[in-house]
Amino acid sequence: MSAPPYQQLEQEFKRLHAFRGSLSLLRWDAAVMMPRGSADVRGEQLAALETEYHALLTAPRITRLMDRAQANIQVLSDWQIANLREMRRQRDHAIATPVSLISRLTKAASRAEARWLEARQQGKFELFAPHLEEVVNLVRDKAALLGQALNLAPYDALVDEFSPGITTADIDAMFKALSRRLPSLIREAIAVQESRPPLALTGKFPPSKQKALIVEVMKAVGFPFDRGRLDESEHPFTEGVSGDMRVTTRIDPNDVFSGLLGALHETGHAMYDLGLPQEWRDQPVGRDRGMALEESQSLLIEMTVCRSRPFVQYAQPLLAKHFGVGGPEWGAENVYAHLNRVKRGLIRVDADELTYPLHIMLRYELEKQLLSGELAVRNLPEAWNAGMEQRLGIRPPSDVEGCLQDIHWAVGSFGYFPSYALGAVIAAQLYDSLRADVPALDEQLARGEFSGLLDWLRTNVYSLGSKMLVQDLLKGATGKPLSATSFIRYVEAKYLESAESSAAA
Amino acid sequence: MSAPPYQQLEQEFKRLHAFRGSLSLLRWDAAVMMPRGSADVRGEQLAALETEYHALLTAPRITRLMDRAQANIQVLSDWQIANLREMRRQRDHAIATPVSLISRLTKAASRAEARWLEARQQGKFELFAPHLEEVVNLVRDKAALLGQALNLAPYDALVDEFSPGITTADIDAMFKALSRRLPSLIREAIAVQESRPPLALTGKFPPSKQKALIVEVMKAVGFPFDRGRLDESEHPFTEGVSGDMRVTTRIDPNDVFSGLLGALHETGHAMYDLGLPQEWRDQPVGRDRGMALEESQSLLIEMTVCRSRPFVQYAQPLLAKHFGVGGPEWGAENVYAHLNRVKRGLIRVDADELTYPLHIMLRYELEKQLLSGELAVRNLPEAWNAGMEQRLGIRPPSDVEGCLQDIHWAVGSFGYFPSYALGAVIAAQLYDSLRADVPALDEQLARGEFSGLLDWLRTNVYSLGSKMLVQDLLKGATGKPLSATSFIRYVEAKYLESAESSAAA
Repeated sequence: MSAPPYQQLEQEFKRLHAFRGSLSLLRWDAAVMMPRGSADVRGEQLAALETEYHALLTAPRITRLMDRAQANIQVLSDWQIANLREMRRQRDHAIATPVSLISRLTKAASRAEARWLEARQQGKFELFAPHLEEVVNLVRDKAALLGQALNLAPYDALVDEFSPGITTADIDAMFKALSRRLPSLIREAIAVQESRPPLALTGKFPPSKQKALIVEVMKAVGFPFDRGRLDESEHPFTEGVSGDMRVTTRIDPNDVFSGLLGALHETGHAMYDLGLPQEWRDQPVGRDRGMALEESQSLLIEMTVCRSRPFVQYAQPLLAKHFGVGGPEWGAENVYAHLNRVKRGLIRVDADELTYPLHIMLRYELEKQLLSGELAVRNLPEAWNAGMEQRLGIRPPSDVEGCLQDIHWAVGSFGYFPSYALGAVIAAQLYDSLRADVPALDEQLARGEFSGLLDWLRTNVYSLGSKMLVQDLLKGATGKPLSATSFIRYVEAKYLESAESSAAA
Repeated sequence: MSAPPYQQLEQEFKRLHAFRGSLSLLRWDAAVMMPRGSADVRGEQLAALETEYHALLTAPRITRLMDRAQANIQVLSDWQIANLREMRRQRDHAIATPVSLISRLTKAASRAEARWLEARQQGKFELFAPHLEEVVNLVRDKAALLGQALNLAPYDALVDEFSPGITTADIDAMFKALSRRLPSLIREAIAVQESRPPLALTGKFPPSKQKALIVEVMKAVGFPFDRGRLDESEHPFTEGVSGDMRVTTRIDPNDVFSGLLGALHETGHAMYDLGLPQEWRDQPVGRDRGMALEESQSLLIEMTVCRSRPFVQYAQPLLAKHFGVGGPEWGAENVYAHLNRVKRGLIRVDADELTYPLHIMLRYELEKQLLSGELAVRNLPEAWNAGMEQRLGIRPPSDVEGCLQDIHWAVGSFGYFPSYALGAVIAAQLYDSLRADVPALDEQLARGEFSGLLDWLRTNVYSLGSKMLVQDLLKGATGKPLSATSFIRYVEAKYLESAESSAAA
């Protein structure tokens, strides 16, 4: 008298969901609370739970239940069918790579990460190179096996892990459109900026006051502090599951905005995760639809909304309230200018909306070449520097500000970088439709009201979970296929506005 | 070419250790960091990991490996043999009770706990009674099954879960000795006290300053803050594993001592856990030797050491330093008197060394009667009140200060209470030998030096892990079997000292 196969599968994945949530908490604690000397202990705990998770997901019983559920698919609802598909996707990814390869990759990545830190400290790429090479070789093997199992090109198989359904073709089309317009647009935007340089914003901003401001803004956005926390960590991140969401930011006492914007970026992730369909919260179909969409939600809040004039109108009095600042440099228009400065810089995480995609394009090309073998690891620094010179006209004075700046490759995350650029493009496309559907949006935001924004996102994005691929979700929400058109229009309008129109605003 | 069976078992138990550590962190977080609304999510995570832990521990493969390792036991070292024995003990306990019974008990306990809280708030035992009855019935079933499997009387089987090797005979012998002396000793001690009442200690003690004091004292004791944390929680507790030890306390701004002593109690647990044999840290034989010994270590630090005159001599200048207090009431002798007041009270957790065992004796008798069926749950309040009157001469005005004060029975912890009294008795017996072996102990403590104390405990207690039963450990450390003699001598000397001798001290 056991339950039908599909219902048994739901029970199994409910258990897997509890494991995922536990793993997430162990990671959060490691970054926020854990004593310095406890990393080894935590490493063993994470490895044990991940191994068990993998074993449970790839057990023969799961495959048998999937086959039986599939054979009787006509009794399932469309959500259940989508859930079964997502269960299979997770299982397919997990089963495609032998545990021995994953384990070798995990260990190699752990060594490479340590050497990457060392190489950064000493400014010596050669300390890192042999370890990166080991990681590249193992990721290449993994991509080949994944690709075979999923019937995808190797690189596409890696992308599919992070953003299901996104292919190299999507990414290439996006980057082609962006590279046609962005280089000239950056020049024009910088020229506009230079015609009216903003006043400097200096001062000391005590962390406790910054935190009070951040909490006030996060509450206005709707972050539920009874089912989530805000803490500080070395790098901002979001961990947790719907029902217990942990957001962090990094607070710099010399910078009034970086802690706030970091927190708002993560709040964008958190609001998406919290808005996922409650009735599917412990099932694969109830999960976020991958990193490209995740990043679109964080960028939409941080970049599009919280660097807009209406938001500045709401936030500017809060700066006065929390820090007691005043004077012409704290006027709305000057604050707005600071939040939206375009600058050709070396560091991706500090980049603005316009130059950011160029940073990603460089990494995308280089990681494909590394995996195909076209580019040898030892030649990476030169290829990086040449690429920066070509794309942004600046050359890193050292590899620390060059190919050693990101952790992704050290830990084996290849195929992840495009999500960042896809996120920006998707955010702009969604925001186009959102503004059309919510005409009072700007007035609401200027009053610190985020419900119109969030209602639209809940209906059109959050509540769909992983029911469909991101391309289909986007078509449903905007009526159009994925394209860079909205993004280009958005940045053109924002960064080329004439001095007169902005002064009038 | 697989490893020998014993080595395979070590691998399996290493994994189980990682699960235990993960569960411990999830519990710590729930009590210290978790947002209010996330309890359901955490409950699911704990249940999933506990179920998996149980499944891994009771898998047929483990039994087969144990049998094969046992058949080849001559190749094992004495530590390995002890480890194999402890592995079997864990497996035997886990396998004796069907998962269905454990699951029913977990759910009943969870309901009972909620109703216990409600009953306390409303002062109505009858709200709690039917749920306690359900728990008692299920614990009775569990005790019968455990007893059968372990060849022990049912109640002894429950005690064996918390303190392996301790039997009703040990407990009865201890309580017989204690009840012969304590009632009269309490009268005499109170008379001595009344002859020289201490001056009142009033004031406000800001939590941040209390925390600074606590951290300073914990550092002096040797708590490693690079592998552990101190936080605040509703009730003091210790969670974690060797390598990541989390201690909490509750800070009361009106009470200068309760937060410090709570933290020191937990530091006693933590120092024991941190001192367990490192080379066995992820194996059963590397674990603490049960709750009686655990409690002996916390009481030894909190009660015996940190309420002693030498400790007061060290701590008194710290009170002046952290709180700026002065005057005759903050003199060492007056502080000492406050730390060691004997008072017939209703609440166990507030009780002093002399009356505490009487609270435990009452609970021990009542829980045995509840399990045997001799006492019906509905008659518990009256039996409790009569017992308090008989033992301490006071009658609770309500069940909140009576049989509703402890959470233990609500959550199904029967057989646990005796550990507290055993802990006090064991602590005194160990301290007798410790003082004989470390003649300079008092001078060291008065200077805030704890290394002599801890070296002795490491050698004679901590480093032995679960290699032997607590009775054998005690014989090795003190040359004598478990007995209440040291405890009675200790409290007689401490509480009956004449006014003259104390003034001279």
